[in-house]
Amino acid sequence: MTRPRSDLARLAPDGRAARQLMRSGAYNGHTAGMAPGHVQANLAILPRREADDFLRFCQRNPKPCPLLAVTEPGDPLLPALGDGLDLRSDLPRYRVWRDGDLVDEVDDIAALWRDDLVGFAIGCSFSFEEALLQAGVPLRHVAEGRNVAMYRTSLPTTPAGRFHGPMVVSMRPMKAADAIRAVQVTSRFPQVHGAPVHIGDPALIGIADLARPDFGDAVAVADDELPVFWACGVTPQSVVMAARPAFCITHAPGCMLVTDLLNHRIASF
Amino acid sequence: MTRPRSDLARLAPDGRAARQLMRSGAYNGHTAGMAPGHVQANLAILPRREADDFLRFCQRNPKPCPLLAVTEPGDPLLPALGDGLDLRSDLPRYRVWRDGDLVDEVDDIAALWRDDLVGFAIGCSFSFEEALLQAGVPLRHVAEGRNVAMYRTSLPTTPAGRFHGPMVVSMRPMKAADAIRAVQVTSRFPQVHGAPVHIGDPALIGIADLARPDFGDAVAVADDELPVFWACGVTPQSVVMAARPAFCITHAPGCMLVTDLLNHRIASF
Repeated sequence: MTRPRSDLARLAPDGRAARQLMRSGAYNGHTAGMAPGHVQANLAILPRREADDFLRFCQRNPKPCPLLAVTEPGDPLLPALGDGLDLRSDLPRYRVWRDGDLVDEVDDIAALWRDDLVGFAIGCSFSFEEALLQAGVPLRHVAEGRNVAMYRTSLPTTPAGRFHGPMVVSMRPMKAADAIRAVQVTSRFPQVHGAPVHIGDPALIGIADLARPDFGDAVAVADDELPVFWACGVTPQSVVMAARPAFCITHAPGCMLVTDLLNHRIASF
Repeated sequence: MTRPRSDLARLAPDGRAARQLMRSGAYNGHTAGMAPGHVQANLAILPRREADDFLRFCQRNPKPCPLLAVTEPGDPLLPALGDGLDLRSDLPRYRVWRDGDLVDEVDDIAALWRDDLVGFAIGCSFSFEEALLQAGVPLRHVAEGRNVAMYRTSLPTTPAGRFHGPMVVSMRPMKAADAIRAVQVTSRFPQVHGAPVHIGDPALIGIADLARPDFGDAVAVADDELPVFWACGVTPQSVVMAARPAFCITHAPGCMLVTDLLNHRIASF
């Protein structure tokens, strides 16, 4: 399933080309490396009743849940993120959840669409990782071809209606000078998690063992490095699952929504 | 000698009032707390021959030696930093060095002025400390009424002519969230040392024991805090002393040049 990033960039040089591949059914794998320079997003789709609470949850927790765009109820199109972008067909794979349980993984959700569904596109760390690499900050999990290490923490989120739960963070090990540069670079990207939420001792945010991530793959932290932690887009997914809504659709892990937005256009200052 | 900051702010509400106090001989103490909101500066005065090398040293080492302004050779005025500002009389106290040895501490250097002297005003951490406090980041040494702790490090500077030597840093203990905020806040102030140069393990930059600073006063670092290190304006002074120039004048410790520049006007973005 995993292809070299350079192949994917050739296959899908921009958001429209990436979405066309998904829509035609020609590709249903990971999107990391596709459409270089373009914003990719986490997806959550909820019935209107839960969607109102969830929108307030995102508003109150912008670091783990930076909202890029929300659909009109019942409308599967999201023109703010891409010309003709259709949430029913334009992601590689979707997960379908009923009462909080995963019940299916599919390439297309046209048959599941309802006129009370609301889609949420939430910023993803791919954008700031691209900015970090361009700034010369090495990312070990990228160099080693692994998924980033993610952890449940003791950091609270601010609840809204039925949605509540701890923040999930991603961790990248860095030398101190790179950690300082990483704060500067990622502060420019509030729409894709922004600045780190913690640096240093993992126990202070409730992480017992860096070698045992709750999601993704462990990476080594050298003696001369600091673990640097960012709020992670798995937080909204984890919070939604814990609330066990009657119905929900999300992207499958690593199979993101590829948009027409350019990373450098969402940078502040 | 030390008066409460509020007294000093009343005594010298702005740069001009502060300098008038010094010039008249009415005050020769520390300047911390004077002219709130105004940039204060480190001072180094060198004969033209050494000044050329030193100017290149500052240009190559902007983090420890951020140059605010340089005089014309022989001219003791520095209008870029203050209306009528006269380096011969407008600081509270000066130190006079010959062949690298401290030979005198005086309130006025009019009798020592020569037509080959060049004055350097170098940014000082007071400006970014004010910005940190305004951003709600606590500073322990300020709360405890101590001088900031400073250390010689193994971090090199880039030499220029006769000037070379290790970087001196100041250290402020902070919780991780405050350290992240402090990177953001101080990154806006490149003219007063800018972002930190190190966070975390002091041994990585050649500091053996945080409890034994080379200059200033030790402060405690709690278990849930990180030591955060900034390039320090003692670096140029230390480098100049090591070069043992035939003649040199500096400000006395804590007795800075108070300018008309406003801290918020030197902030980038």
